[in-house]
Amino acid sequence: MTDTTYQQLEGRFTRLHRYAHLGAMAGWDQLTMMPTGGNEARAEAMAELSVLMHETLTAPETRRLLAAVEPSSLNEAQQANLREIRREVEDATIMPPSLVEAQSLAGARCEKAWRTCRPNNDWEGFLPTFREVVRLSREEARIRAEAAGCSRYEALLQKFEPGLTLEALDDIFNDLRQWLPGLLSEAVERQRGQDPVLPQGPFGEADQRRLGERVMRWLGFDFEHGRLDVSLHPFCGGVPDDVRLTTRYRSDECLTALMGIIHETGHARYEQNLPEAWRRQPAGRARSMAVHESQSLSFEMQLGRSAAFVRQLRPWLIEALGDQPAFDADNLVRLSQQVRPGLIRVDADEVSYPAHILLRYDIERALIEGEIEVEDIPTRWDEAMQHLLGLDTRGNYRDGCLQDIHWTDGSFGYFPTYSLGAMLAAQLMAAARQAEPQLDARIAEGDPSLLLEWLRTHIWQQGSLLETPELITRATGEALNPEYYRRHLRARYLEG
Amino acid sequence: MTDTTYQQLEGRFTRLHRYAHLGAMAGWDQLTMMPTGGNEARAEAMAELSVLMHETLTAPETRRLLAAVEPSSLNEAQQANLREIRREVEDATIMPPSLVEAQSLAGARCEKAWRTCRPNNDWEGFLPTFREVVRLSREEARIRAEAAGCSRYEALLQKFEPGLTLEALDDIFNDLRQWLPGLLSEAVERQRGQDPVLPQGPFGEADQRRLGERVMRWLGFDFEHGRLDVSLHPFCGGVPDDVRLTTRYRSDECLTALMGIIHETGHARYEQNLPEAWRRQPAGRARSMAVHESQSLSFEMQLGRSAAFVRQLRPWLIEALGDQPAFDADNLVRLSQQVRPGLIRVDADEVSYPAHILLRYDIERALIEGEIEVEDIPTRWDEAMQHLLGLDTRGNYRDGCLQDIHWTDGSFGYFPTYSLGAMLAAQLMAAARQAEPQLDARIAEGDPSLLLEWLRTHIWQQGSLLETPELITRATGEALNPEYYRRHLRARYLEG
Repeated sequence: MTDTTYQQLEGRFTRLHRYAHLGAMAGWDQLTMMPTGGNEARAEAMAELSVLMHETLTAPETRRLLAAVEPSSLNEAQQANLREIRREVEDATIMPPSLVEAQSLAGARCEKAWRTCRPNNDWEGFLPTFREVVRLSREEARIRAEAAGCSRYEALLQKFEPGLTLEALDDIFNDLRQWLPGLLSEAVERQRGQDPVLPQGPFGEADQRRLGERVMRWLGFDFEHGRLDVSLHPFCGGVPDDVRLTTRYRSDECLTALMGIIHETGHARYEQNLPEAWRRQPAGRARSMAVHESQSLSFEMQLGRSAAFVRQLRPWLIEALGDQPAFDADNLVRLSQQVRPGLIRVDADEVSYPAHILLRYDIERALIEGEIEVEDIPTRWDEAMQHLLGLDTRGNYRDGCLQDIHWTDGSFGYFPTYSLGAMLAAQLMAAARQAEPQLDARIAEGDPSLLLEWLRTHIWQQGSLLETPELITRATGEALNPEYYRRHLRARYLEG
Repeated sequence: MTDTTYQQLEGRFTRLHRYAHLGAMAGWDQLTMMPTGGNEARAEAMAELSVLMHETLTAPETRRLLAAVEPSSLNEAQQANLREIRREVEDATIMPPSLVEAQSLAGARCEKAWRTCRPNNDWEGFLPTFREVVRLSREEARIRAEAAGCSRYEALLQKFEPGLTLEALDDIFNDLRQWLPGLLSEAVERQRGQDPVLPQGPFGEADQRRLGERVMRWLGFDFEHGRLDVSLHPFCGGVPDDVRLTTRYRSDECLTALMGIIHETGHARYEQNLPEAWRRQPAGRARSMAVHESQSLSFEMQLGRSAAFVRQLRPWLIEALGDQPAFDADNLVRLSQQVRPGLIRVDADEVSYPAHILLRYDIERALIEGEIEVEDIPTRWDEAMQHLLGLDTRGNYRDGCLQDIHWTDGSFGYFPTYSLGAMLAAQLMAAARQAEPQLDARIAEGDPSLLLEWLRTHIWQQGSLLETPELITRATGEALNPEYYRRHLRARYLEG
């Protein structure tokens, strides 16, 4: 009985979903609440859960059911779910457990070395552990590429963006390379001599939190199904029924935490509005890293840093934190849209950010394909920084190739998703505007619901029922196209 | 190879320990942090974990290992661990899953009915769901009694106090019946006309929390391995490496929350100081409910309400909350030691508390043994309240037999552990005083370390390596003896 087989398969994934719930909560607690002495026991418990989930995913019974299920007896959504189930099982099965374990150990060692080497600007000290991480990632890429019949870097990229080919990515990034440097220098030139007045602290944590919660409510965050807390590095975790997002407050500054909250609220609303009927199955999960990032950036960049929104913010800022010259409306817009190329990716503005990504993409792709070795990274980094942002990083590993944590645990293929998300956000905003001509006027009146409802219908409620390219095409009428991003940046930074 | 068999068995229980970690944290979060909308998904995840743990405990492989292990090849501690493992497996195996499920459903229904019926004083409305709970508990008792070859109530009692016979319990409780009513009325008489001045709020939550944390530190709570938070009903949860305790603050009163914190800190220090080498195994767990309660009551009753401690508290109270007439040292002692028989168990003072337990013990034992039916409870309750505390509860179900949550989910056999804990606390205190003649003088000087170190050595570090009677005898030189409790109450309330 095919139906029964499929139902049994769903049953196993419902169980996995519930195990994942426990892991998500333990992970959130670890970063927000757990006292330091609890770390070892927690790490053991979470590793045990990973083993359990891997065992359940790769169990002979799971594979038997997967082989026995008759796709033609399933409806469209069930077929989509089956596709996602199959992807997950294959992904868990393809990697030899010995390699997974070696990667986990090497990653932990390399991250530990990174925590000491970065502050000490010690690239040489970082190399031995990093070399091992790269060796193992190349091995992973080889295995995945052989199974998928694609290039090695593409195989890693597809861990984060299932279905994205390197050819499609190159089309997009090559387009970006054409116009980004010119647009960036134009934007910098245009803002010359217009430095904004900076907010003057101290800003109390409780005041900032109340302000953040007010903005979250305005953005539709459901506090019956989520919380806002504090962690060292902001993130959005938890489960769709109970989304836990975090921020970090500074007493000398108030916009960073607020924009961080708006960003994470984009991730959160996506999670809170995934399709109810599919919540316990792979088809009900968020689509991919780039799509997730497109939601946080729709909130932070498309909406949160728009002049229309920033003007809304002014009275709330004043009510929460008192008035001061920096809270003048035009100044707030300048603060939110300041373009200033710098060395650090996570501090980068909207226009220079993609340059940081192009640089990392070129290096990590060449590294995984074996075209360069780890020793070649600093030179490649320095050249690209000079070329893309006009900055000199020679000898400055701390603020150069040692700045990110991503490569330390072998997350090669991840960086591109940040810029794909930014581009998709611009494209979605353009599509939403076309569908809802009153969208901008309504936002200016203090009502973001046209935008939010459009995102809910076209992205959030879709979960993983469609593959990413189909999701984008159905929502916007065409494939991912960087032209919308270029237009958005030009409109905001050169014509606004 | 016996050694290998035993190691494999330990491996399975290490895994169970790590699963339990995830459950403990999810349970803590549910009561302290979780937004209400997260409840359904959380309940599903925790139920799935229970299924997993039950499956692991009762798996054929577990029972095969248990049958194959050769006890003679094990050292003493390993043998103790094997005993605890066997008990846990048998306990999980003995109950038919259909009965466990029926109990879970009936308990949930009855608790739900209770939440409405209690405020409405609606005993008749409560009866239908409660009758089903009792029917299922009798069935459980019958199955357990047959397997253990003991009486039905004793079989339920031993779920919470392994090894405690009904004969031993009756010896203890019959002794208590002899002297408690007389001692209680003497104490009430002695305090007549000496009502303490009550503290006047409002008391801020942050101030009360700082005071509580200061007292927790003084009692040796390790904040590297634990936290203090807020929940509707105070509890001590988490895991030994990360103990989560909670309290509830009132703005009009400050001693209830503080004494609650001291109580939970007793539970917490027991957990934090369980034997490190056995932490992941059943032999490393806390011994039983009565022993756990003896630790919280050693902290709250023996130490926390002693005149010596209360005098320590005075300057800390004043520093945290400002001075007021109620904080006069003698008045604080009167406040902490006030005897006033009342209807509600959880509000009862140290002297009248055991009367509430005797009453419940008599009723629940007769109910499980089939000597009375649920319809007989109110009459039995009214008679016992009149007899033991001289109070009239006729028609007042809300503050009578509907006041506790315990019976709603079938926790028959649990109530006696509260008073056994109180008696054991008195006996331990007496033994510690004998071993450390300077103990009281040192407490009066502000140093509780002699008491705490004695408890650490004789109770906390023992985990479940000994059975309860052996633990008590080794620590105090004799079996549990209510005489120490009588002497303690006499000394504090009639001679102090």
